[in-house]
Amino acid sequence: LSTVPAWLNGAPADGALLLSRGLHYGDGVFRTLLKYDGQLVDLKLQVIKLCHDASVLGLDVDQEVLRSEAEAAGAAADRAVVKLMLLRAGAGRGYRSDSRQADRLALCYPLPEYPAAHWRQGIAAFRSGIKLGRQPVLAGIKHLNRLEQVLGSRDWPEGAGEGILCDEQLMPVCGTRSNLFWVRGGRLHTPSLENCGVAGVMRDKVLACAAALGVPVEVAGRPWHELSEADEAFVTNSLVGIWPLRSLEQRSWTAPGSLTRKLMTALRHPLINSAMR
Amino acid sequence: LSTVPAWLNGAPADGALLLSRGLHYGDGVFRTLLKYDGQLVDLKLQVIKLCHDASVLGLDVDQEVLRSEAEAAGAAADRAVVKLMLLRAGAGRGYRSDSRQADRLALCYPLPEYPAAHWRQGIAAFRSGIKLGRQPVLAGIKHLNRLEQVLGSRDWPEGAGEGILCDEQLMPVCGTRSNLFWVRGGRLHTPSLENCGVAGVMRDKVLACAAALGVPVEVAGRPWHELSEADEAFVTNSLVGIWPLRSLEQRSWTAPGSLTRKLMTALRHPLINSAMR
Repeated sequence: LSTVPAWLNGAPADGALLLSRGLHYGDGVFRTLLKYDGQLVDLKLQVIKLCHDASVLGLDVDQEVLRSEAEAAGAAADRAVVKLMLLRAGAGRGYRSDSRQADRLALCYPLPEYPAAHWRQGIAAFRSGIKLGRQPVLAGIKHLNRLEQVLGSRDWPEGAGEGILCDEQLMPVCGTRSNLFWVRGGRLHTPSLENCGVAGVMRDKVLACAAALGVPVEVAGRPWHELSEADEAFVTNSLVGIWPLRSLEQRSWTAPGSLTRKLMTALRHPLINSAMR
Repeated sequence: LSTVPAWLNGAPADGALLLSRGLHYGDGVFRTLLKYDGQLVDLKLQVIKLCHDASVLGLDVDQEVLRSEAEAAGAAADRAVVKLMLLRAGAGRGYRSDSRQADRLALCYPLPEYPAAHWRQGIAAFRSGIKLGRQPVLAGIKHLNRLEQVLGSRDWPEGAGEGILCDEQLMPVCGTRSNLFWVRGGRLHTPSLENCGVAGVMRDKVLACAAALGVPVEVAGRPWHELSEADEAFVTNSLVGIWPLRSLEQRSWTAPGSLTRKLMTALRHPLINSAMR
């Protein structure tokens, strides 16, 4: 496929992705979907988010093609993690590219077996040592430049369920693979993602559930102590829905708290439902 | 190779790199080498830089293996661009990895035919619209998270030879694919790379040449106007050595300037020598 000679670990190599701009520059976007009991959860929303992110990078994609390829990728599995990636097409060397075309890569991973206690009693979280850089142009989108998350996942303490990442002002932003929420005085807080972080589908869904329940919500950057002094805290992502926090540094909570529990019910997420029943 | 079913553009796919952490997270580093008249220029220095960058990401590599694989990758070509990439090994999903092992990918591209005028009269440069985010942990290393450079290369004006990137304080940092220098009152200036940017091998060599010529050097962040009011300016990378700037926004220069010309001679770079003789 490639006319550029390539060697992998000393042996001649070829393959469709050796010259991919996804590999060379992280020039692409992705989303991760839960398949549970034969259903791809939030497929339509996920594809909408993926296409939004693609448009930020200047990539054109067909939502219907993505949906049908996601279905096909998960077809053989009753429960799975389906990852959809869009990689800017074009094999040339150099950062410049006028291509708006994307290669679509779909992968079907086994669903991890998370302990029910992660939902029932919450997870221990830690504060990651990495501070997220500001990049408003890329903030919110789920692109393939994920070294901050990789570095933020080093030195993971034994038994921890998630690491919390701060920005340069030491304001909490998100988990390494999740969005972050906390509750203070009946109000739900989540960091804004104008400068860094990824806007997950589950974050949108939790915000929608809170609105439906009449819970006041604040989306804003807030100092660390507001998180550590919160009444309740939890992280969200598409695979697990909500995981309550039971501890973070010196702070511990009886988890899930009452509002967290209401949101866990309202979310109708299959893994939450399965763990909590 | 993979036990994770994968589809590329709707067709079943396999290949060594489908699950690579290089592709999924940009979890790796690279360097680009010039091969000219049968010689890999600065091979030893390039491999030392690559291994330094790898160590920042926690990757162990054998310099001798890298050198011999670079030689093998370029063996069939008299003139070429050899790209060496190190990708953290491990096919699991998720940001966490304890692997210190790297897959080595070597690619041999044709050498572009740059016009001799790029050296003899200099290039037109433009100010890119993207501002580089601060990330001291990753600053200076040549990693695979290059979306800022990709975005910074959009809207490339017709005829321009390079785009100049600024940091959040609007201080010039580097070119999209080069390091940046300028001369004011006999002093050589180049931005520090403590918060963003890539430390190229050619940057080190130019600094060494300046020291050998007794030219005073300042490595520091400086406001944009110091660049636009400079007596001379140029960009550097391993492929082209030095390209003088002949214009940047409203400013134009008679290029190359006298100190730039001295450095171009002192560098003994094959493409400079070929263009200038």
